[in-house]
Amino acid sequence: MRTQAEIKAMIEVLAKLDTSRMYLNDFFHTWKESDDEIAAVFQVAEILRAMREDNISTKVFDSGLGISIFRDNSTRTRFSFASACNLLGLEVQDLDEKISQIAHGETVRETANMVSFMADVIGIRDDMYIGKGHTYMKTVADSVAEGYKDGVLEQRPTLVNLQCDIDHPTQSMADMLHVINHFGGVENLKGKKIAMTWAYSPSYGKPLSVPQGIIGLFSRFGMEVVLAHPEGYDIMKDVEDVAAANAKASGGSFRKVDSMEEAFKDADIVYPKSWAPYAVMEERTRLVEAGRFDDLKDLEKRCLENNAKFKDWTCTEDLMKTTKDGKALYMHCLPADITGLSCKEGEVDRSVFDRYLVPLYKEASYKPYIIAAMIFLSKFEKPSAKLQMLLDEARPRIK
Amino acid sequence: MRTQAEIKAMIEVLAKLDTSRMYLNDFFHTWKESDDEIAAVFQVAEILRAMREDNISTKVFDSGLGISIFRDNSTRTRFSFASACNLLGLEVQDLDEKISQIAHGETVRETANMVSFMADVIGIRDDMYIGKGHTYMKTVADSVAEGYKDGVLEQRPTLVNLQCDIDHPTQSMADMLHVINHFGGVENLKGKKIAMTWAYSPSYGKPLSVPQGIIGLFSRFGMEVVLAHPEGYDIMKDVEDVAAANAKASGGSFRKVDSMEEAFKDADIVYPKSWAPYAVMEERTRLVEAGRFDDLKDLEKRCLENNAKFKDWTCTEDLMKTTKDGKALYMHCLPADITGLSCKEGEVDRSVFDRYLVPLYKEASYKPYIIAAMIFLSKFEKPSAKLQMLLDEARPRIK
Amino acid sequence: MRTQAEIKAMIEVLAKLDTSRMYLNDFFHTWKESDDEIAAVFQVAEILRAMREDNISTKVFDSGLGISIFRDNSTRTRFSFASACNLLGLEVQDLDEKISQIAHGETVRETANMVSFMADVIGIRDDMYIGKGHTYMKTVADSVAEGYKDGVLEQRPTLVNLQCDIDHPTQSMADMLHVINHFGGVENLKGKKIAMTWAYSPSYGKPLSVPQGIIGLFSRFGMEVVLAHPEGYDIMKDVEDVAAANAKASGGSFRKVDSMEEAFKDADIVYPKSWAPYAVMEERTRLVEAGRFDDLKDLEKRCLENNAKFKDWTCTEDLMKTTKDGKALYMHCLPADITGLSCKEGEVDRSVFDRYLVPLYKEASYKPYIIAAMIFLSKFEKPSAKLQMLLDEARPRIK
Repeated sequence: MRTQAEIKAMIEVLAKLDTSRMYLNDFFHTWKESDDEIAAVFQVAEILRAMREDNISTKVFDSGLGISIFRDNSTRTRFSFASACNLLGLEVQDLDEKISQIAHGETVRETANMVSFMADVIGIRDDMYIGKGHTYMKTVADSVAEGYKDGVLEQRPTLVNLQCDIDHPTQSMADMLHVINHFGGVENLKGKKIAMTWAYSPSYGKPLSVPQGIIGLFSRFGMEVVLAHPEGYDIMKDVEDVAAANAKASGGSFRKVDSMEEAFKDADIVYPKSWAPYAVMEERTRLVEAGRFDDLKDLEKRCLENNAKFKDWTCTEDLMKTTKDGKALYMHCLPADITGLSCKEGEVDRSVFDRYLVPLYKEASYKPYIIAAMIFLSKFEKPSAKLQMLLDEARPRIK
Repeated sequence: MRTQAEIKAMIEVLAKLDTSRMYLNDFFHTWKESDDEIAAVFQVAEILRAMREDNISTKVFDSGLGISIFRDNSTRTRFSFASACNLLGLEVQDLDEKISQIAHGETVRETANMVSFMADVIGIRDDMYIGKGHTYMKTVADSVAEGYKDGVLEQRPTLVNLQCDIDHPTQSMADMLHVINHFGGVENLKGKKIAMTWAYSPSYGKPLSVPQGIIGLFSRFGMEVVLAHPEGYDIMKDVEDVAAANAKASGGSFRKVDSMEEAFKDADIVYPKSWAPYAVMEERTRLVEAGRFDDLKDLEKRCLENNAKFKDWTCTEDLMKTTKDGKALYMHCLPADITGLSCKEGEVDRSVFDRYLVPLYKEASYKPYIIAAMIFLSKFEKPSAKLQMLLDEARPRIK
Repeated sequence: MRTQAEIKAMIEVLAKLDTSRMYLNDFFHTWKESDDEIAAVFQVAEILRAMREDNISTKVFDSGLGISIFRDNSTRTRFSFASACNLLGLEVQDLDEKISQIAHGETVRETANMVSFMADVIGIRDDMYIGKGHTYMKTVADSVAEGYKDGVLEQRPTLVNLQCDIDHPTQSMADMLHVINHFGGVENLKGKKIAMTWAYSPSYGKPLSVPQGIIGLFSRFGMEVVLAHPEGYDIMKDVEDVAAANAKASGGSFRKVDSMEEAFKDADIVYPKSWAPYAVMEERTRLVEAGRFDDLKDLEKRCLENNAKFKDWTCTEDLMKTTKDGKALYMHCLPADITGLSCKEGEVDRSVFDRYLVPLYKEASYKPYIIAAMIFLSKFEKPSAKLQMLLDEARPRIK
């Protein structure tokens, strides 16, 4: 619990950040946001969390809808989005759309408008097909912006990217907020080494947006960012370029290695996590588009066989011992493939995972607040003034 | 945006209308409502919209549920109902009932009561089977009215027909409100010609309630209402009688023609839209009831073959040129079957559809407000006083 | 409608009950609650209902989620929980989990935390497998309690058992509140005879938690509780022991008979209802765990054949005539298997069922208020003070 004076001080920090460009705007990729904007998301998230802990209502919407569009199943993201909306006073309405039902841009435009008559925010997760997810989100965002301009919609619904094919900003920012708190402040991150490494999983086709999101964001804080994966498991080149440029600008570094051992060595943070090779994801998209489902099965088979060559890419106790003081912060977006628990051979040893259970849950717990902060910043031109007003009113969340 | 004075003036117009019979009552068909009642729905819808545009909260319910029962899939109607409920402060709970699960009147009565303990309103869409939809709604409405009388329910949930086999009042009234605004006022509709015409679609079994709803409502405004369809594509005789009587009373006209060309000629408004012949829909209902699913497939096949004879019933650019000044208002309840976009041959040319995109979206945008108005009028004995109270309070929807 | 003075008097009765142990605690089984705690649930339920009838808002939560986990389909329980949450200001989020998806305790712990970031209450129905339902609920409750302690969750979500393999407390307490009101007060129940009897149903595997819940609760009120079933249809021995101990403590009695006639004779209340034998339910659980689905079908077949031997265990008009003055209160948790309506031969004659329709609906109508009362008592340390505050404020539910 924080005192009102502490929260007031947090609001004053926020007031100094320039968030004007976020107002009535969408959140697609972290690297499209300025440093002030990134800092503001963290700051608003922390303020909202502090106010909730103090039983102060942050319900800024009296009514209004938050539309969620999940193009694959997602319990956790669904609940995070629903929590964020509820915290601010929006009611969630789920739109269940199969990928096959949204083919043409015009159809997307129509549906986007039809579900948005009372929508203040739209959250979309569409991470399955390379080259599709972000494009879809952009079409939705443009459609409702136009709907607002044309007088069809009474408000401009803003969009939160809940995971696309390129970035997973709500994940990477929740992860980073966890890291900031773990190390006692953003100022302590300079020079810290993070190992974002591929790890073996018995399942196939995991999205690239987590590793991409991590290197695209963590490289902004002067850290030593190391990306490790077996040969062939490349991620998108564009995002590597983003990470390299970020690292340069922030006085940190970004490099790629082909050994988990090298990545883990003296690392302060490790993030071992499976993903599919970019080239495979591209082929998969082409096959789905062409309706070649037999070839798709074949691709999956080949991909799993290839994965199996790298079963030694797994986060063991021995590897953990090679990290900084043997105590690196272990991270994962969850759920993990845990050796001996959820599968025979997976991303991480059960004993390692178990030791980090509470930190892992805390890591996840930031996500609803990150989403709420993104919504908040897109809806209020002067977020600090609005938060101060809520603090002054101090309406109890529970009577 | 309207000024408070303008909204006040709108409320004063509402105050002169007699809506007493709507209080604690259901909304089944437009032709069961008086002229004052129809006018009141439009007026409340416009006032609610104006208040939302001005960021004035119209949340009259502190808590309470809006139950939605959709007996076939319906994204758009679902969102319209959810939006309307949210606007007034009700939380939507969906009841998923398969048609097979509700067989006996007694079962309907039980389920209706069991889901209505905190329900202020029930919205039902059941348009699939001739002779069934309205009957089902009536049973639900009677059941909960009785439940209230018996002390089972603390409130009398009122019912909004979100589309039955006979009428589609929320569609026809949203359409009419669009027309009223397009032509600059209800007083400008006298003598305007509307062509409600059948159009070819490659799909089968589209409900009759849209054309029926349109002729049953539009005939009340002194307009020249023309219904056009190929031989055999008749709608319900009862509704044609309603339209004829309405036309007579309002100083307009209602007639049937068997040519799209004749209907479009000099029309101010065109509404080309596919539907199934009434006789086919009746047979379909009988076959479903008898569980004769093989015969059902055969019926579908025959029906599609018959449809295909009338592929020239389609809204082309050439046809549009024959309308009043070549500029008739094109209408559709959406989604449309668009030639060259969503199908090879459909109800309308893509270029025509594209030209009317914004008006079509605006047409749809009235529906949540129409639904909210129907709920509002069924819940408040003095709707104008209540709206004036909301205007005086002027609580912001978004802080 | 009650006057404010009457409601105030009800609150004063509540104030004398010790509910301190309920605060931030879960509700699993009625027999784990003290007499004061049971009385408090009834009292809060009645107060909440009275306030709603008087259009006084009982929305104590400004925001917050109620998580519902239904591990089998359940329209009615779903709506009751949603109603209760809505009444208090919580928004429901449904978690759809298949039994196969939650295998390990650790997975339950993870999921429980991941969905609870903004959860104030969790309602679970898991009644399908003997030895599983309660265990699952306990794991969820412990997991989130720990999550709160560890700083993962900002609040401690409390759990309401919406039906487990052992007890069905929201049903039995709604039933008892109906009985209390029917007989004009809890003080009139001493010596009243209730027949909780098995009845024939053409379906298989109905849970034991209803009869167990009834004898476990009704035996606390000095009543003559008679449990009747054919040979082999035993319920859990532990719960029979609870009923026997309760009866002794309350000055009532509990006994088992093997004849419906004997149970009905001079009964004040009859509750004829089908259930599966405990031994069968145990075997079923074992077979499901072992994935022996063929054997499962065989078990069902044998069980239905055995059921069919006892078709004369049905609540007929003749049997009803043998009850006290021929006018026993007929009860059922609904839906019932009604002879000649929902099935050829079932639990009750249609004419009996029809005669009790309104009482049956009233019986069910208490459930949302019972659930709301359980939530309320777990969230407020001084429930009477909080209710008095709501009464004093008297904010209208509908403006």
